[in-house]
Amino acid sequence: MTETTEFDTIAAISTPPGEGAISIVRLSGEQALTVAQQIFKGKALSQCASHTINYGHVVDPQTQNVVDEVMVSVLKAPKTYTREDMVEINTHGGIVATNHVLQLLLSHGARLAEPGEFTKRAFLNGRIDLTQAESVMDLIRAKTDRAMQVAVNQLDGNLSHLIKNIRQEILDALAQVEVNIDYPEYDAVETMTTKMLLEKATTVRKQVQQLLATANQGKVLREGLATAIVGRPNVGKSSLLNHLLHEDKAIVTDVAGTTRDVIEEYVNVRDVPLKLVDTAGIRDTDDKVEKIGVERSRQAITAADLVLLVLNNSEPLTAEDQELLNLTANKKRIVILNKTDLPVQLDDAALKQKVPADDVIAISALTTNGIDQLEGRIAQLFWGGIDNSQSTTLVSNARQIGLLHQADQALGDVLQGIADGMPVDLVQIDMTRAWDLLGEITGDSYQDELLNQLFSQFCLGK
Amino acid sequence: MTETTEFDTIAAISTPPGEGAISIVRLSGEQALTVAQQIFKGKALSQCASHTINYGHVVDPQTQNVVDEVMVSVLKAPKTYTREDMVEINTHGGIVATNHVLQLLLSHGARLAEPGEFTKRAFLNGRIDLTQAESVMDLIRAKTDRAMQVAVNQLDGNLSHLIKNIRQEILDALAQVEVNIDYPEYDAVETMTTKMLLEKATTVRKQVQQLLATANQGKVLREGLATAIVGRPNVGKSSLLNHLLHEDKAIVTDVAGTTRDVIEEYVNVRDVPLKLVDTAGIRDTDDKVEKIGVERSRQAITAADLVLLVLNNSEPLTAEDQELLNLTANKKRIVILNKTDLPVQLDDAALKQKVPADDVIAISALTTNGIDQLEGRIAQLFWGGIDNSQSTTLVSNARQIGLLHQADQALGDVLQGIADGMPVDLVQIDMTRAWDLLGEITGDSYQDELLNQLFSQFCLGK
Repeated sequence: MTETTEFDTIAAISTPPGEGAISIVRLSGEQALTVAQQIFKGKALSQCASHTINYGHVVDPQTQNVVDEVMVSVLKAPKTYTREDMVEINTHGGIVATNHVLQLLLSHGARLAEPGEFTKRAFLNGRIDLTQAESVMDLIRAKTDRAMQVAVNQLDGNLSHLIKNIRQEILDALAQVEVNIDYPEYDAVETMTTKMLLEKATTVRKQVQQLLATANQGKVLREGLATAIVGRPNVGKSSLLNHLLHEDKAIVTDVAGTTRDVIEEYVNVRDVPLKLVDTAGIRDTDDKVEKIGVERSRQAITAADLVLLVLNNSEPLTAEDQELLNLTANKKRIVILNKTDLPVQLDDAALKQKVPADDVIAISALTTNGIDQLEGRIAQLFWGGIDNSQSTTLVSNARQIGLLHQADQALGDVLQGIADGMPVDLVQIDMTRAWDLLGEITGDSYQDELLNQLFSQFCLGK
Repeated sequence: MTETTEFDTIAAISTPPGEGAISIVRLSGEQALTVAQQIFKGKALSQCASHTINYGHVVDPQTQNVVDEVMVSVLKAPKTYTREDMVEINTHGGIVATNHVLQLLLSHGARLAEPGEFTKRAFLNGRIDLTQAESVMDLIRAKTDRAMQVAVNQLDGNLSHLIKNIRQEILDALAQVEVNIDYPEYDAVETMTTKMLLEKATTVRKQVQQLLATANQGKVLREGLATAIVGRPNVGKSSLLNHLLHEDKAIVTDVAGTTRDVIEEYVNVRDVPLKLVDTAGIRDTDDKVEKIGVERSRQAITAADLVLLVLNNSEPLTAEDQELLNLTANKKRIVILNKTDLPVQLDDAALKQKVPADDVIAISALTTNGIDQLEGRIAQLFWGGIDNSQSTTLVSNARQIGLLHQADQALGDVLQGIADGMPVDLVQIDMTRAWDLLGEITGDSYQDELLNQLFSQFCLGK
C-alpha cells in the first residue's frame, strides 16, 4: 500500500508534558492548514511554501484574544512524517497556553490524536513499514547509545531489508513449486521440487535463526537486563552500587506520561543497560547496617536476569553466604569478592569448586580495584558470541521475536515434512505460513487489532 | 541598544525533559550554522533559505554513526528569537539521542547555554525589553487563561509602552527645567518651573499609582492566591474541595525541571488561581473522620492569603468553630455554612455579628447549591475594583512592582520638596531618580548583576 489514504485531521501536543522553553502542537490531515489558519493571525498558510517557518499569533476566534506568540511550520504532503499535510505550532512552552492552542484546534475541526496515531498514518500511508514504526518508539525509549544505534539502524530499514530478502527467497521457492506442479509431465519433478524446497528452507531457516540469535541481546538492549545486587549485611553492596553508578552512568527514567509513578533506574555498563532491582533496599540502609534479609534477597534473585552476589573476602564464608550461593546457582551470576584491600580470610579454592573461575571477580570497593574487570565480565556475559559492532542488525522487539520464532517453527515443519516424505502441496502450506509470518513483522500483512495494540504503546503526539 | 552584539554560539535542549514525540536542541550565535553543519548530513545549511525546515540525519563525525533522523530549522539573523543566526534540531524525542545531539554540538564549537540565555540575547540584541523578557517566563508559568492574557499583553509591549510614555513625560519636564535654568534673566522663572514640575509630578505619579493598584491582582494571577480550607472535622471540607476541583479546573504543576520535588496544586476559580495550602491534609482523611486538628489549621491559616472557613449549618456553633473564627478574624476570609440540605441549627444572626453578611455563604456540598455564589464571591473579593477586562495591563512581577513603588516614592519626594520650598535643582534630582527607576523596569538602564539574576530564573533552553 503506497497510496495516501484520506483521513480526518488530528492534533496533539508532541513535546513532553511540563513547562519548557518550547512546546509543539502538531496537526496532520487534509484539513491541517485550514484548521490551523482559523486560529492563526499571520501569513496565509496555504500560500506559504512547504517546509517553511512562519511567525504570527494564535488568536481565539471567539474572543479575539491573543493566546500566544508562535512559529508555525508548514509541511505539505507528501514529504512529511505522515505523508499528509502537517502543521507544527511552536508555542512559548507554557502549559496553559499550549493546552489552549490544542483546545482551539479541537474546536475548529481537528480531532485529538490517539497515542502513536501520527506514526500509524506514516505506516498506513506507506512511508514506513512496521519495523520502522516500532523503531521510532525504541529510539525514544533507548537507554544506552548502543540501544539507540540498534533503533536508528532499524529505522533506516535494515531489518526490513533482511526480512524482505528472506521473504523473496521463500517466494521464489514457492513460485518454483507452482511451475513444477504445472508441468507434471516431466519425470522426477516431485523429487526435484522436494530437493529444491529442502535447500531453500534450510538456507532461509539459517537466516531466521541468525536473526533470532541476536534476540536476547536486542531485547535486553531495549528493555534492560534486570540485575540484582545481593549479599549479606556489611559486605559492601551499596559501595559497589555507587561505583557502578559513578560518572553519570545512571539513567533514571520516568515511565512516559506519568510523573508520579514507578521510577525505573538503569546503569549503563559498557552499553549494557542494567535495570536495577530493589536498589531502594540498598540505598535506604547505610553500608554498616544494611537491613536486607535473605527473604528480600530471594525476591530480588527471582526477579533478576543477572545476579551480582557480593561476598566479604576478609571473612570466611558464612551460612548465609552459602544460602545465597545456593539460591543463585541456576542464575546468570557473578560472584564478587569485595574488600580485597583487607587480609584475605575467604577460602576461594572452595568457592571456585562451586562457581566457574571466570565468574568470580575480586574487587575493592574502597580502592576501585577490579571494578573494570567486573564491568568487562558483565559486557562479556551479555554480548557473548554476538558481534558488538555498530553495523549488526539486532532484533529487539518482543512482537518481532515472537513472529521470527513462529517462522522458524514453520520452516522446521517444512524440513520435517520433507523428511517424513509428505506430499509437496502439504509442505508448501508450511512454507507459505513462514512467508506470511515474516510479512507480519514488516506489516506487509497485518490486522487492524494488531495496529491498534501496537500504536497504543506510543507517546501522545508521535 | 539596537545593534547585534557578537556572542559565542550557545546550545541547549529547549523542550521539557523526558520522553516525548519531539525534542528540540537549539543553537544561537554567529557559528550556529557552521557548528550544526558539522554533525548534520543533509543539505548544506548555509545554502538553505532562512526559515526553512530541512530533513537529514545527525551523524557523529568521529564514529560516522547515525545518532538520529532529524528535521533542522534554519533561522538566519536578524529575524529570529535572539536576532542571531539560529538552528533548531527536531529529534525523535528520545532522552539518549537528544542528549547525544547536544553533546556533539558542545564538542564541535557550541557552549552550553545558561538558563534564559536565549532570551537574554533577545534583550541584549535589542529585540525585546526587560518587561517583555519577563513576560516570556510568566507566559510559560501561567496558571490560568487570565494570567496567560496578562503575560501575552506584556509580551506585546503594552506595559513597556505605558512605562515609556511616563518616562517621556518626566523627560519633557526635566528638559523644561534645563531650558528655564538656562534663561535665568526671565522673571518668575523659578515659580513657573516649580509650578510645571508640580503639575507633571502629580500627573505622572497618578499614572504610576494606577499601575500599582493592579499589582496585587497581577501578583496573585502570576503566583496564585494561597488559600486554606479549614474547619473542624466532619463539616465537609473535602467535599467542598472536590467541588472546587471539579470539571478539570485543577492544575497540578511541577516545579520546573524537577520531577520528584514539591507538587503545587492550583484550582482555577473564575480565573483566580487558588494555590491550595495543605490539601494533602484534607485528602488523606475521608470526610467522616477528618483528622485535622486546630494546630494544623492554625499553620494553614498563617500561610494563607484567603481562608475558606467551613461550618456545619446543621449544628450549633462549637467552641472549636469559635476558635477558628477568632483565628481568622484578621484574614481575608469567606465563612461557608455547609449542609444547608439538613435542618438549620446554627444561629446565623450571631454569626453575622462577627462576619459581614457578604462573606457568609450558605452551600450544600451535597446538592452543590451555593457553590456558584461562593465562586462569585471569591472572584469579587479578588478582582475588587479592578476592571477584569482582557485589555487591562496588570503589573504582576515582583521586581517591576518594587521599582514602581520606588518610583512612586521618588515622585512623592518631588512633591514634598516642592511643598517644602526646596530649590528646583534639588527637586530635579528626585525627578531624575524616578526616571531612572522606571527605566530599570524596561531595562533601558540596567546592571549586569540584575540581568544574571533575572535570567537565571528561566527554564533551560529559553
